[in-house]
Amino acid sequence: MWLPRGVQISPRPLHSHPTHPNSLASHVSSGSQGDLASRRRASTGRAKQRSKKKDGGLLFVRDGIREAEGCGDSRDGHLLPADLRTTGWRVFGVLFIISIDLGLWRWFCPGWIEALEAHDGASKGKYTIGLGQDCMAFCTDVEDVISMSLTVVTSLLKKYQIDPKQIGRLEVGSETVIDKSKSIKTWIMQIFEEYDNTDVEGVDSTNACYGGTAALFNCVNWVESNSWDGRYGLVVCTDSGVYAEGPARPTGGAAAVAMLIGPNAPICFESKYRGTHMSHVYDFYKPNLASEYPLVQKGFARLYFNDFLRNTSVVEKDVKEKLEPFTKLSGDESYESRDLEKASQQVAKPLYDAKVQPSTLLPKQLGNMYTASLYAAFASVIHNKHKTLVGQRIVMFSYGSGLTSTMFSFKLQNGQHPFSLPNIASVLNVSEKLERRHVVSPEKFVETLKLMEHRYGAKDFETSRDTNLLTPGTFYLVNVDSMYRRYYARKNVEEATHGENGSLANGH
Amino acid sequence: MWLPRGVQISPRPLHSHPTHPNSLASHVSSGSQGDLASRRRASTGRAKQRSKKKDGGLLFVRDGIREAEGCGDSRDGHLLPADLRTTGWRVFGVLFIISIDLGLWRWFCPGWIEALEAHDGASKGKYTIGLGQDCMAFCTDVEDVISMSLTVVTSLLKKYQIDPKQIGRLEVGSETVIDKSKSIKTWIMQIFEEYDNTDVEGVDSTNACYGGTAALFNCVNWVESNSWDGRYGLVVCTDSGVYAEGPARPTGGAAAVAMLIGPNAPICFESKYRGTHMSHVYDFYKPNLASEYPLVQKGFARLYFNDFLRNTSVVEKDVKEKLEPFTKLSGDESYESRDLEKASQQVAKPLYDAKVQPSTLLPKQLGNMYTASLYAAFASVIHNKHKTLVGQRIVMFSYGSGLTSTMFSFKLQNGQHPFSLPNIASVLNVSEKLERRHVVSPEKFVETLKLMEHRYGAKDFETSRDTNLLTPGTFYLVNVDSMYRRYYARKNVEEATHGENGSLANGH
Repeated sequence: MWLPRGVQISPRPLHSHPTHPNSLASHVSSGSQGDLASRRRASTGRAKQRSKKKDGGLLFVRDGIREAEGCGDSRDGHLLPADLRTTGWRVFGVLFIISIDLGLWRWFCPGWIEALEAHDGASKGKYTIGLGQDCMAFCTDVEDVISMSLTVVTSLLKKYQIDPKQIGRLEVGSETVIDKSKSIKTWIMQIFEEYDNTDVEGVDSTNACYGGTAALFNCVNWVESNSWDGRYGLVVCTDSGVYAEGPARPTGGAAAVAMLIGPNAPICFESKYRGTHMSHVYDFYKPNLASEYPLVQKGFARLYFNDFLRNTSVVEKDVKEKLEPFTKLSGDESYESRDLEKASQQVAKPLYDAKVQPSTLLPKQLGNMYTASLYAAFASVIHNKHKTLVGQRIVMFSYGSGLTSTMFSFKLQNGQHPFSLPNIASVLNVSEKLERRHVVSPEKFVETLKLMEHRYGAKDFETSRDTNLLTPGTFYLVNVDSMYRRYYARKNVEEATHGENGSLANGH
Repeated sequence: MWLPRGVQISPRPLHSHPTHPNSLASHVSSGSQGDLASRRRASTGRAKQRSKKKDGGLLFVRDGIREAEGCGDSRDGHLLPADLRTTGWRVFGVLFIISIDLGLWRWFCPGWIEALEAHDGASKGKYTIGLGQDCMAFCTDVEDVISMSLTVVTSLLKKYQIDPKQIGRLEVGSETVIDKSKSIKTWIMQIFEEYDNTDVEGVDSTNACYGGTAALFNCVNWVESNSWDGRYGLVVCTDSGVYAEGPARPTGGAAAVAMLIGPNAPICFESKYRGTHMSHVYDFYKPNLASEYPLVQKGFARLYFNDFLRNTSVVEKDVKEKLEPFTKLSGDESYESRDLEKASQQVAKPLYDAKVQPSTLLPKQLGNMYTASLYAAFASVIHNKHKTLVGQRIVMFSYGSGLTSTMFSFKLQNGQHPFSLPNIASVLNVSEKLERRHVVSPEKFVETLKLMEHRYGAKDFETSRDTNLLTPGTFYLVNVDSMYRRYYARKNVEEATHGENGSLANGH
């Protein structure tokens, strides 16, 4: 979702250099260490002082960035690494997401969710409005997270004409377990082995829907680290969420998202602006009926209310009148107040429609894609708004049951062809992909899921090899042998080279 | 294992800055980008030229480092980030592993492996000599990877007096799946939540035995990235490897290793000296009888032979005579030649005993600990050799089936108390821990493993709560409820505070 201008997030606090009570930082053998540490502390201290002067300890995002940019002035003087680090992306300028490509979803199920409502005797709109879900994507027996990943990575490399040898790191985020030990990443290595590139670091990251975000952070950190060898990083988020028959089934979905990480990109990762909360909870074990969208709407309304509490002048007079009655509630009371929930959702609706709604297109159409959901939402924003995104900031909130969560920020820039926002939107080709989907009857859907349930964790079977409805160039599962080895093939590649998408990266 | 002086590894090639055929690096909006990229390329080019002059394209490690150190000279001139990056640890100097603590293993089984040999009718020494295994550690019903992780993290924080609030990232590497979605990391968060620290990034990394190395790399990259907030990183490698009755059983083991990542440490991570090979293979599916040690011995002998092929002058005259007959073999022939294997193992033996043997203590005693194995081997070296390690370099080779593999390098320095090598060895307290182990009869061992097999993935049970033989301060599993929620307790902490280890970090 986008951050409304008034909503505040604080820059991540920079902790002082850890020094052990018994150790002296200034006594280390490497001469520059003590200096760096003390400069870092001094710099942090200055930033804190400045922020206090402005608004009593809280930073507006834009002010925060201006401060960070201000630090960049030290480039004119004597430049030290610690100073560079505190200035964030502005000086280093290499921490960007270059491009996103989305797995080609093929199956969806309009009408099925309404049919389920009727079947369950649920009130009309409970699933569609309550869950915010219109359709959902799912894998048939010839596709899984591995085939979707192979397809999306191949597609991204082709569309942006990236030499597979230029990939130096590949990370996968997923919670769909096909093997407890062998990572999905190793299956994707087949693409790179073909080009004699086996020097590709990274494995799979796991914690529910957060795995993709962990993979993204790992990849960005790699680009910023001494271990970076100058090549691109690649992040794949993929899941196929299938639930047993019953009310949880419409909360499933399937997709793969691939993101290319490197310098000079239009989507800038702002390392210093993020907040993380992780703790040990068992929410995963609760019956999981809730999809993200009503939560997003509530969460947005809550941010709006928090913002109002911090500074009443950010809202219009009529909004003020509606929220004023709730200012005396304690924190816990305010979380439980249904009246506040209703009132804040009502007043925040125009902003929600402008800032959040554009991100819900793909999640509403494809369902809950777990690790891929957040990045499919982000792709929806690019699809819907790429013409007006330059200079804008996008707030991402990633949550994985268990729990791990981080709120972080992207800043959008122009970018250069083929990594410009308009071309990324064109390559994503969302409208055409949505139009090309195939309608499946509820009966066929249920039948397919039954087969898939049966196949999960199984060995020694052949798939239908029915690739009629697959887009050319798509990878598909052929068989799993008696040793559980999985074999994949690719639908007529030749056709794919010419036919799939008119707007190739280099302008053909 | 240590790198014998003659054995060569090449510094990781620095790839040129990726530029798209349609994009011009010099045209980016951030003014310094083009400069950085071209400087990086130029610097790489110079390094290549220099290395060619020396030995025809291959760098000796020491020469490589000297070259890297030479790049540090640019600090006196105009300093640019890309230059800093190419100089590696020497200038930044923040990328260190500070400390290692080992899970308190409790159970082991002397004689059991010999008994198994007899039971299987295997020739005497097949498992002990063939697998290089003397004993093995295992978890009883009150311990698992979560309890071992809780114990080892608590122990490390206590022994080095680290405030839990000073941990900014926690990564876990494991292939022991207790939950497909909820990461082990979230269970460990309980320690930090108690101190109101929920701002701890990182999740679990997965690919067989390589997960711990991936977690380590992620953590080090984080410290080097813009996202680093000045706090420590913590890496936990933990596994409990149990095999069904039969010849694979002695290849199991159990342990947890915790490593603290931060600046000013004695164990320096050398980002630029590593080689990675990853590809899609199904070795995981093969019957896994082979433990690592004979492989290590063979691998070391192979490195020695490779070294000899590159430069015959690195070996003594009598060695040369023994290896010369094999120089005409093709690559494939040389891999299959038993005679070469024998000859190279024989001539490499003195070096193996000096360089590799010190790393095998804990793996021989505890068994195959998967992700923890490599770092337990490293701890063995610290235990055996800490007095003579300063200025030395240790080569680490991490392999995970599937496959993912990286060879990388640590450089040892003095360090300051409590993070000095002698104190780390003292806190590791390997000898006492080995002595304190409890002997278990083969019958009891088999009985325990049967119970554990039954409990795997089960719910709604209570453990024996038999903590008699646990060290005070150890976490243990109490019960798993009907919703699969796992509850842990800690053995009398008070006692632990005073009793466990005489050589606490701050000298008490």
